[in-house]
Order: sequence, then structure tokens, then C-alpha cells
Amino acid sequence: MKYSKLFSKTTKTVSEDEVSNNAQLLIKAGFVYKEMAGAYCYLPLGIRVLEKIKQIVREEMNKIGGEEFIMTSLQRKELWEKTDRWDDGKVDVWFKSALKNGTEVGFGWSHEEPISEMMKLYINSYRDLPVYVYQFQTKMRNELRAKSGIMRGREFVMKDMYSYSVSDEAHEEFYNKAKEAYLASFERLGLGDDTFFTFASGGAFTQFSHEFQTICDAGEDICYLHREKRIAVNEEVYNDEVLSQLGLKKEDLEQVKTAEVGNIFSFGSTKSEELDLCFTDEAGEKKPVILGSYGIGITRAMGVIVEKFHDENGIIWPENVAPFVVHIVSIAKDESDEAYKKAEELYNELNEKEIEVLWDDRIETRPGEKFADADLIGIPTRVVVSSKSLENGGYEVKKRNENDSQIVSKDELLKMVK
Amino acid sequence: MKYSKLFSKTTKTVSEDEVSNNAQLLIKAGFVYKEMAGAYCYLPLGIRVLEKIKQIVREEMNKIGGEEFIMTSLQRKELWEKTDRWDDGKVDVWFKSALKNGTEVGFGWSHEEPISEMMKLYINSYRDLPVYVYQFQTKMRNELRAKSGIMRGREFVMKDMYSYSVSDEAHEEFYNKAKEAYLASFERLGLGDDTFFTFASGGAFTQFSHEFQTICDAGEDICYLHREKRIAVNEEVYNDEVLSQLGLKKEDLEQVKTAEVGNIFSFGSTKSEELDLCFTDEAGEKKPVILGSYGIGITRAMGVIVEKFHDENGIIWPENVAPFVVHIVSIAKDESDEAYKKAEELYNELNEKEIEVLWDDRIETRPGEKFADADLIGIPTRVVVSSKSLENGGYEVKKRNENDSQIVSKDELLKMVK
Repeated sequence: MKYSKLFSKTTKTVSEDEVSNNAQLLIKAGFVYKEMAGAYCYLPLGIRVLEKIKQIVREEMNKIGGEEFIMTSLQRKELWEKTDRWDDGKVDVWFKSALKNGTEVGFGWSHEEPISEMMKLYINSYRDLPVYVYQFQTKMRNELRAKSGIMRGREFVMKDMYSYSVSDEAHEEFYNKAKEAYLASFERLGLGDDTFFTFASGGAFTQFSHEFQTICDAGEDICYLHREKRIAVNEEVYNDEVLSQLGLKKEDLEQVKTAEVGNIFSFGSTKSEELDLCFTDEAGEKKPVILGSYGIGITRAMGVIVEKFHDENGIIWPENVAPFVVHIVSIAKDESDEAYKKAEELYNELNEKEIEVLWDDRIETRPGEKFADADLIGIPTRVVVSSKSLENGGYEVKKRNENDSQIVSKDELLKMVK
Repeated sequence: MKYSKLFSKTTKTVSEDEVSNNAQLLIKAGFVYKEMAGAYCYLPLGIRVLEKIKQIVREEMNKIGGEEFIMTSLQRKELWEKTDRWDDGKVDVWFKSALKNGTEVGFGWSHEEPISEMMKLYINSYRDLPVYVYQFQTKMRNELRAKSGIMRGREFVMKDMYSYSVSDEAHEEFYNKAKEAYLASFERLGLGDDTFFTFASGGAFTQFSHEFQTICDAGEDICYLHREKRIAVNEEVYNDEVLSQLGLKKEDLEQVKTAEVGNIFSFGSTKSEELDLCFTDEAGEKKPVILGSYGIGITRAMGVIVEKFHDENGIIWPENVAPFVVHIVSIAKDESDEAYKKAEELYNELNEKEIEVLWDDRIETRPGEKFADADLIGIPTRVVVSSKSLENGGYEVKKRNENDSQIVSKDELLKMVK
């Protein structure tokens, strides 16, 4: 893509009420636009990152047998009343509205109820199990405050997966696979080193739920890490009894601020019983289905990545989620300039090889401004094509996360970005 | 994908209040699930079709310079008040709710206002123009009645594109390109032959708006077609004056029922003036930006395809949007059966060649039921692998839209589905 064609140019103006680092950087660099507190538009650069994150997660969910589908945002009141999660006193993040005939409807902040209700149509016998389904859904949550940029929104994208199993054992087996798929996802997103499998408070059915917490100063949680064991304990369950249960000693743990990027949860048979989701087992006996749910905040993960990977000049995208792989900056007086032509040649060649490239082809913009924009946008490899670089034998390559640049030939460059 | 792993099996039960053909077929075949009137979930087969339709439209929009992005569903009241489209008396399809602090919000039924407001940040000079942006957005419309299945929903997916141009001439040029891109999209979706560029009622700025109307008995419009000229006139503007203006004679026109699958609209400078979206031209003069908007109902197009391409046994998907290219039906007593092994071998080979294949690998299901399911689901090529087909020299191939089958070798089969 040519930068001159991109409408969402970098900007210096960010409204003062935008207090979060991630949103400030993403707005300045032209990845997102703030519609209202907690609701952001994803501009061309932003949607590229979002789709890459989704694709990584999609691949990992498919690997463990997940089937993608998509539910509705509109929700039926009577369904959520069955599990006592309609009342605003019980769930305080509903956006509600009404149909023309007065029937109240809600906008989905979670989807366990409708998906489990739907499964009553498809799950009757043990032969219909297991079922593993997931969606990328725009969730609506009427948060009282929304000050964490894209890390906590009123409207945000979540990957939610649901598992339906015949028994606790079968559930446990999938639950462990899902855990591994989550760790693999965060690894590929560039968050692997700082993301920990975390023990958090459970529900009616289990003592613990499990979270994936990433070390992050902008996070809202406090966790106690055991770095060697790669596990953490959320402060909400941090007490002597739990520590001894988990075989952890206080002195081995490190207190850190973290952001929750995922969670996995066993419902056992509670929700199935409330909604009457049952199956007939091999002996002909009616049993409730065992349910698990598994979430990754997609937009939140993007926010956490920005919080963790930036410096005073801008964002530093991990390779796998960067909007482009290469950022060409041409420095030329006009389009007949040798540097412009060489840049164009390189741009075409990279496109042919399907290496994603953004070319800052602007003529009238000062080089300093272009370099500042490249740093702000944060594409991993910057390639400057100028009369000076060409005199010195080629293309000036600099990694966004390194300080030094080097002049390389085209062949060397192509090898570097493959 | 193996059919045994697909949770969304075919079903014979469709609730009686589902009166539309498209939804009945899609529900029976396991493509969609009805959450409430006008709001459908897209199951694994359904989301595959939806994504194919989106990808075709995406490619055509990219070809004419469109940049993909995505706005929010949440809408600010004050913005829509500027153009007098907040009041329920003026726009009667709003779903509205409120933030915790009482601030009213709406859920986007259209996006001209917020996108044009956003563009004030990015468009200042003639150098910033033109801008062409599009999104695939889940629109919310509080329809009084929703009885057309996925053809008219309370929650549905739309591709909406917006163009921002410096002058009427520049706008006109893009508008014509968009028209061609629309015709190309409908052609690729399998709707080309029966879709007509249609003159419909305009707005404050233009005499006509332009629709793309597809001949369809389930449609809600009446149009008058000129088949040779490939144009139509919506009955809302069908009168002597218009016909003479368009150089059409009544006797050459054919009255048909149609479904609107797309529309394109020139706003001129009206909306820009209401929202104060201006730019400075080359002479330093301030001018309002010329706006166009261009919509394709993605889920609606899927519904129209089903309405047009089905028979008494089920859906008949056009190749380009079919959930899979090949539907293998193995007829085998158990997994050690030669027919099962040969089917598995074929399945693996097609997957390796990245030819999308659904394999009905069920053992205990009767052949007749499997054939009925294959017809209902409507994948273009059905391949039966049975002891009989193998004795006769290979694989029994039948196109969904043909009556006769033939036995072919694997090489011949691979050539047919490439």
C-alpha cells in the first residue's frame, strides 16, 4: 500500500480525555479513531493488525477441533432469566433496548446462554458429542468507566469458545488442550514470555478458574508469579491455603501488575441443568452436558501488545501482528528521481512476492517527518531509498527495535524479509 | 471437514413462524439458526458462505481503490441530531439504549454520519482527496416486521462504502467505477444474469438513486426491465416523464418482482454541509466535500441466492459461494471397508490440494439419508464412493444442478474439480 493513498495519516492531536497509552499511540499512528469512550473504529492499519491477531487465534482454535460460527448480538430476555443473568442487579453491563412491539431485548455481553440453548437442537445423544465451537463476536458491555483505551471497551471483539463434553474426564482432556492452544496463541502474538497461566477465583463448580495474565503496567490486576514454573496466582485467591495447595512458597513469588488476556472456565453441569441441555448416554440414561468456556479479548490483546511494545517514538509491532512487514521510505525530489524509481521497483517486487509492504511515497514531506511517522507506526523493518543510500550501494535497512542501520543490496534485503 | 464432526446437522424441524423459503432451507440444511425474528446465527456451513461472499465483494472494492476499515455499532446522539436523523419520527429503525450516566446512545443502522464526522480529522486539503473507504458492518435495524428470513433482518451484515471527492466530475468518475465493481460482484456471486442496474427515487441532490435489483419472487420490489439494455426502472419512479427521459418505451419493458441487492447514492455536498466537512482547494478556497455511499447487503445477497437457486430437495449453491467444492459420500459398513478407505484417501488428497471438501463419513446413516442431506446442503459436486462405484471403476460424480451421474477415475475427478 502507498502511504499517499492511506487516508488515516498520523496525527498529533489526541483529545485530552484519552488517558491510556495504547489508545494515544494508536490514534496518533492512525490505527484507531475514538467514536466515544470505550468504542473505537479500526482504520485500515488497525484492521490489518486485528485480522492478523484473529487469524492466529483462529488457526490455534482450528487445530484443537474448534468450528467457527457466529451468534447474534441481539439477545432474548426470557433466555437470560432462566439463568438469572438478565436483571441489572445481577449483571450490570447490559445494554438493553426494545422491539417495536415492546419486547425487551439485550445486546450480547457474553454468549453462554444463547449458544447452550441453541445446542439443545443439535445435541441429543452421546454420539453428538463432543462439540467445540468458537466465534469472533463484537461484545457490548455497558461499563461504568472506560478509560483503558482498547484494553477495556464498551464495544470490543472477543474470541469465545465453548466446549460440550460427555463427562468430566472428556472435558478435562479438552480443557488442557485449550490451555495449550491459548499458550501457543499468546506465544505467536509476541506475548509468550510475559504471559502466565494463572489461578483465579472459580465459580459454583470449581475452586479456580484459569486466566492468562500478561505482565503489563497498564493492567488492572495484581498477580504473584512463579517465573520458573510459568504460573501465577491472582491476588483475589492469594492466601496461605491456596499457596500450599498449589505447592508454592511466598518467597518464590514476585508481585506484578498484569492484564488479563484470556480466561478458561469450567461450568461443569450447572449451566446445562439450568437450561436443560441434556444428552442420552450409551446406557440410555439422560445426563446434563459438561460445559466449558474459553475467551480471548482480541482488541484487548492488541492494546496489551501496544502497551508492552513501544518507546518514546511510537509502536514496535511484533513481526506476526505488524500491519506490514516492510516500510519503504523514499527520499526523492520528484517521481523522475532515481531514488523514487528504485523505491517503486522494490515496492512492486515485494508485492509480487506477497511480502506486505507500506511505501511512504510522499514527495513533499520532509525526510525527518517521514522517519518520525515510520517510528510511530512501528513496522518491523524500515528501508530507506535515497540518492545517498544508492551511492553507498543499495538500501538502508533498520529494524524498528534496533538503533543501527546498514546498507544492503536488494538480494540481501529480500533474504532479510522473507 | 468431516460431516461427523460438524455439530450443525441437517434438521427436519423448522418452527412454524418461519415463513420465508430462504430461512427454512438454510435452517434445515444447518447453515443458520434463528435466534429471534430477523436475527440469525451463522453456523459453520453458513459462515463459510458468508465469508466467501464478503471476500468477493472485498476484492472488487479493493480493485477500485477501496480501503477497508470498521466503524463502531455504538452511535452518538448529538451527531445524528445535526442531520436530523436521530428522532424516531424521522428514522423509525433505531435501537436505542443509554450509558450508565444516562447519555443516550444508538446502535448503527447506517454510518454516513459517523464516518463523515471522522473524516473531518483526515480531510483538510484537496491533497487529502479522494478517499474511498468501506466496511463489513453488522447493522441493527428495529424493523416492525421481519418475515423475509435473512433477506431483511433486525441484525444483518452490510458492506457499505463511502467516497469523498473534490468535485462533481471526480465523484461521477468514481461513481461509474463503483457501478462496474457492483456488477462484477453480482456476476461473481452467481446473480449476474438476473441483476439489473435500476433507476429509483433520489434525494435532495439527485433525481435518481441507483439500485441493483435481482429478479426474485421473494423480493419486495416491483421493477420494469429492459432486458437488452440491462436496465430497470423501480415502480416508485415509473411514469411517462421518467421513461421518456431514459429513452425507454413501455412496450419494451417487463414487469417483475425483484429484490434489492445493492444501491449507490450521490449525496452531493448536502451531508458535508450539514456536518461541516470541507476542504481547501488549490486556490485556497473552502469547499464542501462531495459524498457518495454504496451498499451491498451481504446476508441479504446470501438469502437471494438461496431463493433463486434451490429445488424441492434443497439448495443449489453457485460454485463461487458454495461452502465446499466437493461433497464426498462414502457408503461403507465400517472403517475397514474398502469404500471407506478409498473415500478417506480421496478426502486427504483433496485437502492437500486445497480443494475444499466435506466428507459425509457417517457409518450408521442410511445411504438414502446421506443423499438427501447432500441435496439439501447443495454443494456443487457430489462424489459417491461405494463398493459398487469401485467395482465400476472409480467414483460416482454428480453435479447438484444435473440429474445424471457418471463413474470417473480419480485423475478425471481431480481434473473436474480443479
